[in-house]
Amino acid sequence: MKDLGWKPNRKSHVPLHKQIEEYIKGKILKGEWPVGTRIPSQRQLSDMLEVNRSTVVSAVDELAAQGLLAGKKGGGTRVINNTWSVLAADPPLDWDTYVQSGTYKPNMPTIQEINRAEFHPNIIRLGTGELSPHLLPHGQMHKIWNRTSNRQISLGYPEPKGDLFLRTALADHLQRIGIQTTPSSILIVSGALQALQLISVGLLHRGSSVLLEKPSYLNSVHVFQSAGMKLVGVPVDQEGIQPSLVCKYKRQYGGDLLYIIPSFHNPTGILMSEKRRHDLLATSEQQRLPVVEDDVYRDLWLDNPPPLPLKSHDKNGNVLYVGSFSKTVSPGLRIGWIAGPEPVMDRLADIKMQTDYGSSSLSQWAAAEWLSTGLYQDHLNQVRKELKYRRNSTIKLLEQHFGGVASWSVPSGGFYIWLHIIPSISMRELFETALKEGILLNPGTIYDRDADQYIRISYSYASLEEMEQAISRLSLIMNDLINRRE
Amino acid sequence: MKDLGWKPNRKSHVPLHKQIEEYIKGKILKGEWPVGTRIPSQRQLSDMLEVNRSTVVSAVDELAAQGLLAGKKGGGTRVINNTWSVLAADPPLDWDTYVQSGTYKPNMPTIQEINRAEFHPNIIRLGTGELSPHLLPHGQMHKIWNRTSNRQISLGYPEPKGDLFLRTALADHLQRIGIQTTPSSILIVSGALQALQLISVGLLHRGSSVLLEKPSYLNSVHVFQSAGMKLVGVPVDQEGIQPSLVCKYKRQYGGDLLYIIPSFHNPTGILMSEKRRHDLLATSEQQRLPVVEDDVYRDLWLDNPPPLPLKSHDKNGNVLYVGSFSKTVSPGLRIGWIAGPEPVMDRLADIKMQTDYGSSSLSQWAAAEWLSTGLYQDHLNQVRKELKYRRNSTIKLLEQHFGGVASWSVPSGGFYIWLHIIPSISMRELFETALKEGILLNPGTIYDRDADQYIRISYSYASLEEMEQAISRLSLIMNDLINRRE
Repeated sequence: MKDLGWKPNRKSHVPLHKQIEEYIKGKILKGEWPVGTRIPSQRQLSDMLEVNRSTVVSAVDELAAQGLLAGKKGGGTRVINNTWSVLAADPPLDWDTYVQSGTYKPNMPTIQEINRAEFHPNIIRLGTGELSPHLLPHGQMHKIWNRTSNRQISLGYPEPKGDLFLRTALADHLQRIGIQTTPSSILIVSGALQALQLISVGLLHRGSSVLLEKPSYLNSVHVFQSAGMKLVGVPVDQEGIQPSLVCKYKRQYGGDLLYIIPSFHNPTGILMSEKRRHDLLATSEQQRLPVVEDDVYRDLWLDNPPPLPLKSHDKNGNVLYVGSFSKTVSPGLRIGWIAGPEPVMDRLADIKMQTDYGSSSLSQWAAAEWLSTGLYQDHLNQVRKELKYRRNSTIKLLEQHFGGVASWSVPSGGFYIWLHIIPSISMRELFETALKEGILLNPGTIYDRDADQYIRISYSYASLEEMEQAISRLSLIMNDLINRRE
Repeated sequence: MKDLGWKPNRKSHVPLHKQIEEYIKGKILKGEWPVGTRIPSQRQLSDMLEVNRSTVVSAVDELAAQGLLAGKKGGGTRVINNTWSVLAADPPLDWDTYVQSGTYKPNMPTIQEINRAEFHPNIIRLGTGELSPHLLPHGQMHKIWNRTSNRQISLGYPEPKGDLFLRTALADHLQRIGIQTTPSSILIVSGALQALQLISVGLLHRGSSVLLEKPSYLNSVHVFQSAGMKLVGVPVDQEGIQPSLVCKYKRQYGGDLLYIIPSFHNPTGILMSEKRRHDLLATSEQQRLPVVEDDVYRDLWLDNPPPLPLKSHDKNGNVLYVGSFSKTVSPGLRIGWIAGPEPVMDRLADIKMQTDYGSSSLSQWAAAEWLSTGLYQDHLNQVRKELKYRRNSTIKLLEQHFGGVASWSVPSGGFYIWLHIIPSISMRELFETALKEGILLNPGTIYDRDADQYIRISYSYASLEEMEQAISRLSLIMNDLINRRE
C-alpha cells in the first residue's frame, strides 16, 4: 500500500487535512481498506501525500474521533469500523490472516523496499538490471507495428507451446549458437522467471534441492522456495561454478537440479570458460543432474562472443536452455523461451495452459517479427556499442572514486559489476544513507546471505551523468562511514 | 508429444519410411527425445504423419535394429540409446521421474484429449468456450495499432499492479456497473485463470477448502488442487448457488473461500438473481467468508443486462472481483483484472512480480485503448447481436433434434447450454464416437464428476453450418447408442 496514486489538491479551497480525511474515509467506505487494515504510518502518509506530519495527524485524529480508525500499541493505526458495519455485532472477515497464510513467500523486505523506491521521482537506480528506457527500441517497435506483415495476429487462445511462427524463428535463432532443435521442443513463456516457475512446480517435488552458483540471482526470488525446495549455493571461481564442488555439495546436501547463468552471470558478471562448460556438462551426465542454463545475457557480449552454450553440446538432453527478450529488447514484451527434451516441454506446456493459458499473442507476434526481420540483430549492435561505452565509463568512475576501498572485475558482457567493499562497514547503513540521498543500491545479500560486503552495480540503467553523480556521492558516504567507524 | 509439426515429403525421392527413420533419429540425436523417452505409438505416428501403419513399422524396426529404440511390454516403444551414449556405462538422466514428481497436477486426460483434438483439421468444436475467430475484432485491433495514440507503449518492466492508464480506465469501467474503486485497488493479471492462480498461492494454505458451484468451470483446472486445496461443490438451483447450503457445506466440509460465476455461469448458463446476490453477500458477511466473483461473461448479456455484481454492494471488502477481456475481445490479449481490498491486491501484486514480472505491456496498452476509446462498447454491441442469433439458432436445432432425449434451459447470456441427456447412455462412448466423426464434445464430467449425463454446448465458437451438421449428426449417434442399449 505504498503508491497511493493520489495527492491532495493544493489549489482547492478545501483544507488539506479535510481532503485527506475524505480520501481515507472514501477508501474505508468503498471497502478498499476493510476493517482490520493497517493504514500507512503518519510518516509514510506525510511522505506520500507531500504534506506536513501535523496535517496527517489532524486528519487521522478526526477519523479516530468518528470511530473509523484506532491506534494499536505497536501495530500502527488500523481501520476499526465503517459506517455500514456500525451495527454489526460480528467481527468482520479478517483478510490479514489470509494474506499471512498463503503458501507463496513474500518478496524479501529489501527487495520490496527496492521495488517501491524505484518509483520515487529523481531516484538514481545504481543497481537496476535492465536497459535504460533510452536504450529500449521504441522507434523499431513502432516500425514493426506499422509495417504490413504477412501474418495476422492470432487473437484466439495461444497454442500450448506458443505461436508456431515464433517457435520456428527461435529454432533458427538457436541454431546460430549451435543448438539443434525443432519448434516442438521449444516452449514460449512470459519471461525467464516464468520458465523457472514452471520448472519448479512441474519437475520437482517439495523437499527437492536446487544447486546454484553462490551468489545467484535465483536467491533474490522465491520461485523454488515457495514450492517447497531448498537452494544450495556452490562456490564459484573466475571461470564459473566448480564441477568438483557441484559433486561434493550434491553428495552432502542433495541436488535434483543445477541452475546456472554461464554467460555474464547475475550478479557477478562472470563468463564461464569453454573448458568449464564441457566439464560441467560431463558432470551433469555422470551425476544424472539436469541443468537449467539461464542464458538471458548471452547476446549482450561487449568484447567477444561468449563460448557456445552448454546446450549446444548436450546430445543427451540433460539441459533445459532458457532465453528471453527482457534484457535485450524489452522487459515489457514478457517473452522468454525454454528449449529441452520434448516430453519435458510437453509437461511444462500443460502446466502453463493451466496457469495462464499461454503468453500474450501480441507479444509473441512482435517477438517473431523482431527475430525474422533481422531487426533484432541490428538493435543488438546498437545496444552493445552503448553498453560497452557505459561499462568503460563506469569502470573509470570506480577507479577514480573507489580505488583502495573496493575491488571488482571488469565484465566482458551483460550489465553487472560485483563490487567488493573492502573496509568493513555496515551495508545496511550504506543502503539507507544512500537512499536518503536519492541513490538506490542493490546490496549483495539479496543474492547471497553471506555477501555482506558486496554491491551489485549495473551500468545498463542510470544515465552516465547520474552514474557519475551517484558514484562520487557514494564514495563520500562510504568515507564518512569508514571515518565514523574509527 | 502430439503435434509433431513435421510430415514426410511425398514428392521426395527418399522413401517415406526412410524419411521417418531419419526424422526420429534426428530427434534422438539432438536430445529432443532423450534415452528413456516413450515415443508415440505406431497408430499415433501413422495418424500424425498421415502414412500407413506399415510404413511406420518399417521405420521403427530399422531404428530398433540400430539399437536406438526398443519395445517394452505394456510400455510402448522407448528410446534406449543414442550414438553418443553407446559406450556410456551409466544409465542416463531419467526425465520421466522428474515429469512424474512435479507438484502441479497434469490436466485431466479428457481435457488433454480435447486440447489435442482442437488442432485436428476440420474438427467441429461443439463445446469450445471462446468467441469464433470470425467474431474476434481483427479490424479494430489494427485500427488501435495504427491510430496515433497520445501514449507511448512502455517497454520497461511493468508496474507491479499493472499500467496505471489501464487501471484508471478499468476503475471507470467498473464504476459503470456500480463498483466504486480506485486504481490502487486493481491488479492487472494475464487472464482470469491467473487471478485464481495468484489467489490460490497468495491467500490460502495447503488443506484449505474452496466452496464452489456444483458443477463449475473451476473443476476443469487444477489451480487450487495443485496448491493443496480441496474443492467442495455446493448444489445450485435456477437462481444460482444456495446460501443456506453454503452455510451447511461450510460447517460440514470447511470453507475458506467461496468461488462463484454469478453471471451466465460456466457451464450451466445460470444467471444469479438479484435477491440471491444480496442473500449470498449477507451470508459471506455473516460467515466471514471471502468471495471470488468471477464475472468474465457479464458483458455478454443477450436479453437484458444482468443484476449488478455482488461487488457493487460489498461495503466491507469481502469480495474479490475478477474480470477479463478473454471472452469479449480476445483471449490472445491475456488481460484480466482483480478488484478488491488494497492490502490483498498488494499481496497478490507482490506474488505476480515474483512469478512473471507482470503482464505484457503491449497487451496492457491495447486493453487500455480498447476501453478508453469506446471501441470496446461498439464491439460488444456487435458481438451481442451475433451471439443472440447464434443462441436462438442453436436452441432451434436442439428442439429439432433433441426433443424428448435431452433437456436444457435457454441461457440469457454468455456462451453455454448445459444439455441434460435423458436416456442413460455411455457418455464416454458418445464422446469417442463423436470424435471419430469429427465432432468434439465437452462432457459434463469435466465440470462435475457426478454430471455424467450432461454435455456443455457452446454456441460461440462453431459456425452455424457446422453447428447444424454436428447437432444432427450427434442425434443420430445418440439414437444409435440408445438402440444398441435396448
